[in-house]
Amino acid sequence: MADNRRYHLAKRPEGTPDEDTFDLREVERPDPDPGQALVRLLYLSVDPYMRDRMRAGESYAQPWEVGGPLYGGAVAEVVDSNGTKFSEGQTVVGNLPWAEYAAAAASELTSVDTDELPVSTALGVLGMPGRTAYFGVREVVEPRADDWMVVSGAAGAVGSVAGQLGELQGANVVGVAGSDEKIDWLTEELGFSAGINYKEEDVRERLGELTDGVDAYYDNVGGPVTDATFSHLNVDARVGICGQIALYNEEERPTGPRKLGKLIETRARVEGLLVGDFAPRFREATEHLGELVGSGKIGYRETVTEGLENAPDAFLGLFEGENVGKQVVNVGDSSR
Amino acid sequence: MADNRRYHLAKRPEGTPDEDTFDLREVERPDPDPGQALVRLLYLSVDPYMRDRMRAGESYAQPWEVGGPLYGGAVAEVVDSNGTKFSEGQTVVGNLPWAEYAAAAASELTSVDTDELPVSTALGVLGMPGRTAYFGVREVVEPRADDWMVVSGAAGAVGSVAGQLGELQGANVVGVAGSDEKIDWLTEELGFSAGINYKEEDVRERLGELTDGVDAYYDNVGGPVTDATFSHLNVDARVGICGQIALYNEEERPTGPRKLGKLIETRARVEGLLVGDFAPRFREATEHLGELVGSGKIGYRETVTEGLENAPDAFLGLFEGENVGKQVVNVGDSSR
Repeated sequence: MADNRRYHLAKRPEGTPDEDTFDLREVERPDPDPGQALVRLLYLSVDPYMRDRMRAGESYAQPWEVGGPLYGGAVAEVVDSNGTKFSEGQTVVGNLPWAEYAAAAASELTSVDTDELPVSTALGVLGMPGRTAYFGVREVVEPRADDWMVVSGAAGAVGSVAGQLGELQGANVVGVAGSDEKIDWLTEELGFSAGINYKEEDVRERLGELTDGVDAYYDNVGGPVTDATFSHLNVDARVGICGQIALYNEEERPTGPRKLGKLIETRARVEGLLVGDFAPRFREATEHLGELVGSGKIGYRETVTEGLENAPDAFLGLFEGENVGKQVVNVGDSSR
Repeated sequence: MADNRRYHLAKRPEGTPDEDTFDLREVERPDPDPGQALVRLLYLSVDPYMRDRMRAGESYAQPWEVGGPLYGGAVAEVVDSNGTKFSEGQTVVGNLPWAEYAAAAASELTSVDTDELPVSTALGVLGMPGRTAYFGVREVVEPRADDWMVVSGAAGAVGSVAGQLGELQGANVVGVAGSDEKIDWLTEELGFSAGINYKEEDVRERLGELTDGVDAYYDNVGGPVTDATFSHLNVDARVGICGQIALYNEEERPTGPRKLGKLIETRARVEGLLVGDFAPRFREATEHLGELVGSGKIGYRETVTEGLENAPDAFLGLFEGENVGKQVVNVGDSSR
């Protein structure tokens, strides 16, 4: 009895993924094994890093199998506890297939507190993207008072939080994003000191006008925005490489100016960031971010796409910059 | 009375400098001002960074003036103490013009101990290049026991010392250089674990065969050797950018593959290095290196070009890899 739907990887994309990449199958609801609960998905997260999992070969993420399910962060409701520690109707978050129903090991699920904020925030400002911003700012980019800090992909789920954390640490944050609507949100609602619309403005020129050089750079994007920012690095600048979304769909090896000589001039430090390295401190991050969001010191937005069948569109929209803030897919409604 | 010769910058080179870049003038010996001594040069250092000083615009070194003298590290003998703390006949090292005679502030000169090693070592293994290797290895690249460490420009003045320091710290050092003669020197005399002749071998392929990935990279070169090494970086690798000699003569902005995404995968750290930042610790470095050279734990070579008039050829040879070890110019003989 096909009473469930699930996306599988149809084939590895060349360049930008398209409808041939995704295979929506009618499948059965799984029977949970001992130690597993059966859950019904409410929200599915789509994230840029997933592009890398579609690729065979070297990456920071394990490649997905062709023919196997796609996975992502998801908020779900427990349908059948199956003797695990969760009760039926409880809201949980974990790494789940792009599906309506899934069986998941209880040890891999975390309870979501549903009292104060929408449960979807467990995928955004209070989830992996928020934690990525928190550890990237605190442990890698380290903005100081009066620093000029640049955030690329500033209106995304990670960048919007990273920039606000920079401002809270006293830095003057310049957000780089791809529309005037996004820039307005960053500067008028989130407190960024300035914004640059990279689709309309010359980032290198504008950074020269706006800043006294760049002391801290939180990079989600790579490519030309990063080239422009490197040109303005100050002595002892810190650069955190968190994402390179501008390059993820390139099949030909992307090329650009060789900028490492700038590091000799500035003795700047460039360091890669993967949030999983900080797993033992996730609780600290979530609590800290929860307080900042609860007290209004950090704002957030979500872009919600309706229906599992539209998850591929939501994912592909990330590369077009269609989302403002965190992009999620509403797969089902809570029974509460 | 023209009893001195001095090189001046004739014009800023485009691309690779040539004979039109350098102007050898017949000039008078300068009269030392109060606080200056008159010195006669024995050895002049030519170094890759000097290419950058010929360029107007952004660099880590102040540009030389067109029509003004060229400068470099030099060992000299005091001819006229002029009441300074130095005695006539004493050997000193300092930043001096490319000339036979120069007047130099006593405060900018340092006495060279001539008892044990040739005075020219004050420009190489016991001078700026040795100190650059010392601080780069100790403070930036930080090789650990059993690490795989790569050194580019490994047969140069900096690289040959950096690699030996890495081996002394227990790392397995792979030197990348441009001739079999250099590789033989590194592996048979200096104790490098392995060598790659980048002009004959595929660096990326060979690193895959020789190493279990690269934990530490001391880069003097940039360009394709650096691309190849980045492909093999291990998790938490450290990269020190000390020089980019492969790129210094490019007038068109050099381009290459965009490799920063590799830092996400590995959380590697890339940091620029300028030895001047460590000026307060120069004595520590010189003493440490002096002990290692004196006890035979560090070997060195010098390539000596005879005659001030051949200094431009010696300089240009750096970019062709003609030197083994430290390249110096013998400008005059000691009177001792």
